[in-house]
Amino acid sequence: MTARGTDFGRLLEPRGIAVVGASANPGRVGGQPVFALTEFGYAGSVYPINPKYREIRGLPCYADIASVPDPCDVALIALPADVVPQAVLDCGERGIRFAVVLSAGFGETPGGADLQRRLEEAVAASGVRVIGPNCQGVLGLRNRVYCGFGAPFQYAHPESGSVALVTQSGGFGYAVFGLADTSWMAFNCVISTGNEVDVETLDLIDYLLDRVDVEIVATYIEGVRDGRRLLALGEKARALGKPIIVWKVGNSSTGRAAAASHTANLSADYEIYRAAFQRPGFVPVRDVDDMVDVAKAFLHRRRPAGPRVGVMSISGGAGVLLADRCEELHLQLPPLSQSSLAELRSFMPQFASVANPLDVTAQVFNDLAMFRRVVGILLRDPHYDQIIVYNASIQGDTALRFANELAAIASETSKPILVGSSALPSRAAAAFEALAKAQLPCFPTPGRAAAAAAALFSFWRNELPVRAAPAAARPVGRVELSFDGERVGEHDAKRCLQAYGIPTVREVLLPLEQALALRDPPLPFPLVAKIDSPDLPHKSEAGAVRAGIRDLSELRAAIGEMLESANRYRPGLRINGVTVQEMAVGTEFLAGALSDPYFGPIVAFGLGGIYAETLRDIVHEFAPFDAGAARRMILSSRGAALFGGVRGQPPLDLDATAAMLSRLSLLIADHADRIAAIDVNPVFVGPQGRGIVAADALLVPRAGR
Amino acid sequence: MTARGTDFGRLLEPRGIAVVGASANPGRVGGQPVFALTEFGYAGSVYPINPKYREIRGLPCYADIASVPDPCDVALIALPADVVPQAVLDCGERGIRFAVVLSAGFGETPGGADLQRRLEEAVAASGVRVIGPNCQGVLGLRNRVYCGFGAPFQYAHPESGSVALVTQSGGFGYAVFGLADTSWMAFNCVISTGNEVDVETLDLIDYLLDRVDVEIVATYIEGVRDGRRLLALGEKARALGKPIIVWKVGNSSTGRAAAASHTANLSADYEIYRAAFQRPGFVPVRDVDDMVDVAKAFLHRRRPAGPRVGVMSISGGAGVLLADRCEELHLQLPPLSQSSLAELRSFMPQFASVANPLDVTAQVFNDLAMFRRVVGILLRDPHYDQIIVYNASIQGDTALRFANELAAIASETSKPILVGSSALPSRAAAAFEALAKAQLPCFPTPGRAAAAAAALFSFWRNELPVRAAPAAARPVGRVELSFDGERVGEHDAKRCLQAYGIPTVREVLLPLEQALALRDPPLPFPLVAKIDSPDLPHKSEAGAVRAGIRDLSELRAAIGEMLESANRYRPGLRINGVTVQEMAVGTEFLAGALSDPYFGPIVAFGLGGIYAETLRDIVHEFAPFDAGAARRMILSSRGAALFGGVRGQPPLDLDATAAMLSRLSLLIADHADRIAAIDVNPVFVGPQGRGIVAADALLVPRAGR
Repeated sequence: MTARGTDFGRLLEPRGIAVVGASANPGRVGGQPVFALTEFGYAGSVYPINPKYREIRGLPCYADIASVPDPCDVALIALPADVVPQAVLDCGERGIRFAVVLSAGFGETPGGADLQRRLEEAVAASGVRVIGPNCQGVLGLRNRVYCGFGAPFQYAHPESGSVALVTQSGGFGYAVFGLADTSWMAFNCVISTGNEVDVETLDLIDYLLDRVDVEIVATYIEGVRDGRRLLALGEKARALGKPIIVWKVGNSSTGRAAAASHTANLSADYEIYRAAFQRPGFVPVRDVDDMVDVAKAFLHRRRPAGPRVGVMSISGGAGVLLADRCEELHLQLPPLSQSSLAELRSFMPQFASVANPLDVTAQVFNDLAMFRRVVGILLRDPHYDQIIVYNASIQGDTALRFANELAAIASETSKPILVGSSALPSRAAAAFEALAKAQLPCFPTPGRAAAAAAALFSFWRNELPVRAAPAAARPVGRVELSFDGERVGEHDAKRCLQAYGIPTVREVLLPLEQALALRDPPLPFPLVAKIDSPDLPHKSEAGAVRAGIRDLSELRAAIGEMLESANRYRPGLRINGVTVQEMAVGTEFLAGALSDPYFGPIVAFGLGGIYAETLRDIVHEFAPFDAGAARRMILSSRGAALFGGVRGQPPLDLDATAAMLSRLSLLIADHADRIAAIDVNPVFVGPQGRGIVAADALLVPRAGR
Repeated sequence: MTARGTDFGRLLEPRGIAVVGASANPGRVGGQPVFALTEFGYAGSVYPINPKYREIRGLPCYADIASVPDPCDVALIALPADVVPQAVLDCGERGIRFAVVLSAGFGETPGGADLQRRLEEAVAASGVRVIGPNCQGVLGLRNRVYCGFGAPFQYAHPESGSVALVTQSGGFGYAVFGLADTSWMAFNCVISTGNEVDVETLDLIDYLLDRVDVEIVATYIEGVRDGRRLLALGEKARALGKPIIVWKVGNSSTGRAAAASHTANLSADYEIYRAAFQRPGFVPVRDVDDMVDVAKAFLHRRRPAGPRVGVMSISGGAGVLLADRCEELHLQLPPLSQSSLAELRSFMPQFASVANPLDVTAQVFNDLAMFRRVVGILLRDPHYDQIIVYNASIQGDTALRFANELAAIASETSKPILVGSSALPSRAAAAFEALAKAQLPCFPTPGRAAAAAAALFSFWRNELPVRAAPAAARPVGRVELSFDGERVGEHDAKRCLQAYGIPTVREVLLPLEQALALRDPPLPFPLVAKIDSPDLPHKSEAGAVRAGIRDLSELRAAIGEMLESANRYRPGLRINGVTVQEMAVGTEFLAGALSDPYFGPIVAFGLGGIYAETLRDIVHEFAPFDAGAARRMILSSRGAALFGGVRGQPPLDLDATAAMLSRLSLLIADHADRIAAIDVNPVFVGPQGRGIVAADALLVPRAGR
């Protein structure tokens, strides 16, 4: 059950919280929140509920949910699993709007599916919005809402900030939070969603993006049910300028199996998520460090206009490393402008290397006037969109003076300034404080500064797509398609492609009798011949394809041999006939389309032939899309270079390939309810202006249709 | 100048240190070491040298190097660059064996080449072993040798350990050291090598590997001059069981340019270093964190017997992440053995997921007996070679109890046990201490634990090569080759391949007159025709190749057209004739060999044709090598799958391809003094048993030969 646009304000700013299953023991799951809510500054009312007690920590203890007084916005439920559905119904009766269910033993356990269904029914019947079950709770740092259990709920957090974290893994999500918390990164809230019986990760992200006190939403996910909503939230995030930092796990086969046994979370292939995260609004990360680094860079609130980075370093070695990393991450390190060069050369010490990276000496860091001048020149240089300043392990007073100077210069520009400092926090505390106060992000190694710069650039570069008027933009209108069976063979699959204007090779389907008694060539030689059968998805494995047939006798022989070979491969197979086709020429690619249960219609494209399986170079795009998006898709694949022309070969026909992919995207988008997948493999792409031609196709209808 | 096997013992354990250019100001480069050597526990003598002072910090100050009393093993030189060569000569006169030159202004500056040459001469004349110049010094933690300047020389380091760090970047290397130092990782020494006018990184690695108090050598390099010695040191390290943790920078084009302007360090392509680091003895890293993590894992002194990891986690989400990372890093997560499954199911809580990863619940961590039992089962399970235990952010007493329990169990096994804990150090200090005492490495995130496990596995898997008897193992003896010119054309290059037993396509080189007056087919059709010219390295770009020629009239036409096209492409080109060849069949690869100025003879191999430039899938191996090494090389390339058979295609001929590469390696190794490079492109590989055939070749002799 998915609700959109829910206002979760009272979940994060509750006037009163009932702890259902409260305990007087602060070590127990039902005891921790009572302790934390009364100790760490929560200003609302706390209502312990447990018939066994009269009071807990000086608060009156209530016998049941019905007895809780007003105001009460949230019930925190720490009861045995089997009584949870009734507790949710009781919350509904009592008018409590949100329930956070910590209890485990639902869909994630072998025998818990039934109980989870009962909980779903209680949610539907009561109207209560439920977080969990099997979650670790809600930690609202702004209002000191300690609604959960485990390490991060056991101490008072000093500050609240503007990073919201939504996590599908309680234990790990809170571990991440704990680690990140030490790194000058302040959280607004951390919400563990557990089995998501009602409220889903995407509901919370949707809401949190709208909050004025949230600037960044970070999320740890194993999978989402509605992939298209994820994409839409990315666009919302990009429009608001608030990144969704996304850490997706369960991407390997072992990882997916583990996720399935963990929160019963199945999800789309990681390849599809990868395509999703390349769209506007997302910044994918892989560990705590990069999550923290990316967040710091965005909290800085400066936006690079392009990929060009100016680097200044006190260490030549660090400059080399920065150059490596920037290049790896598709940033650019252009040379200094002529005027910067001239100015720098006029006063820089002899040992300095006046270039980009600018390898300054300790002297520059000791001479504040010189330091200011050098940084100012870099910042003003029109060749750079952002600046990285690395000061190695300069510590103490020197570091502080440099930090103050940098803070002063920073106010003169809106270009991002990323600082690298490998000094120990204990030896440069004042400097780090000064940088933080000036909102200058500081990273412990140059490599991490470069990665943060790249994240900034890629988020801001990724513009929102321009929505064309839906019908007018279509090169082809919706066409009804007719097909049936479990697999649609080549001939009929190609008819579907033709209906959407995708060129296919000229061919003739000869009935078997006619093929066996052939007297005249059905098309000009050279030809390809294939057995047409719904039972042969992989024809070449079955010896049911012959290419390069040059005359009639070869054609006759090939037909006989193929029939024999196919019958050996799959005795008793159904045969529609023999397809005879012109030989397509060009470079072999593959295209495909599928209806993903989570992300809907998707188109895939990559190098074909023997390289397809070897190189697994497949890019994906969400259907439908226009030729412009198709062009970007092609150019993001490994085969992109072929469209630019490789040594002595003319460039391949990009326009025709893009048109084909866009038409295929319309086909699958129009018929995603009936088509599970279409393979167009191989498709031959000719040189520029010579077009493309689909040489084979296979269509798999959706089961049960 | 390279010296091997130097005993640097007195550099790290000097009885006396002279500070040449000493200052009374502890903030100055000449003042820092006098302060640090007298404050932080150095037990030997300190001799400040500066004619301006009578004493510094209560020590008598000497007017010149000649006046320094015995014992004095090291001179630390902090003088203006122009007087450094004389100071080195003075050290030689005085019998001081080592000089550490901090001064800059030598080869790394535009005008400093001459001064660097003078310093080289002083080194040669004096016999003094010089570290630097332009370095940050030597920090020997065991004997409190503070011979340098900058942040890490400004405070007393509490402990010494067994990790030695050699760095080509002073500023960055010491920054790394400072950061790593906080992470439960104790260093033995840190040496900055600067411009390496005498002592090189490899000299120091060679020596440090032999020290009994060094277990790990870490190094930060921009490049080494003698690549073969690097490989030999890797083998020495592997034989000793002491890894060389290597952090190589200057790998991108921008990074290499920055390195060249930094310490004038040019080096081989990163592709070649990558091949080097895959050989025994090396563990490549990319940032401080992985350097620290890898070092921790090795200090643990346990050796995994294989790639199989058993994972136990209190967080299902972390289990999913661990599964992803292990799979990504080529580790395996096999299921539990039947007996482990049965035993675990008999007592594990209902909510736990009994599988690998084993998703235990908080209950297991709270019940010490149960925790011990679960870990014990995993450790004894014959399905696992190492174990990762992740406890999320469990802190305080619970964490300590768990750490003690783990320490007790660990003593019962020799399998590696890697612990993940995301608790803040301040909240689990006692637990971290207990783990450190038991030598159990602890990592802050599960991803970092998985990466460390992978590093352990790959170091120990990589066995030392078995050295075959040199002559007996050769499938072909040394053959003299004759060629001349700047480029050796196809025909002559192929003769060289043939001399080493590499099959080439059948072909005839027709003199131009004969080609233009052709009456009979020189070979059976279909044929390929090419212009043979030393001026056409890229024939297809010049339109000087035609394939698929099917009869004599086509051949005649092709010859005419090619000549016209080649003459248009390069007017006045030299033409040896027209080569007519049989059409090779098979899958297109490319092979090549080159003499690298740093690493010597090397062979390259990868997918050919249009994919070669598109995919840049090239693997390298150091020549000469036998067919077994060649087979491993082929199977490490992206094209490996083709040798196993791809959908409907028979597997390609691995043996013949390996034999070809091994023979090519003998050819280049035998003639590296005369050959700069050979391209064998394309080489067609047939199905198993059908061999290979080189269809084109080009040889570039070394310049000046």
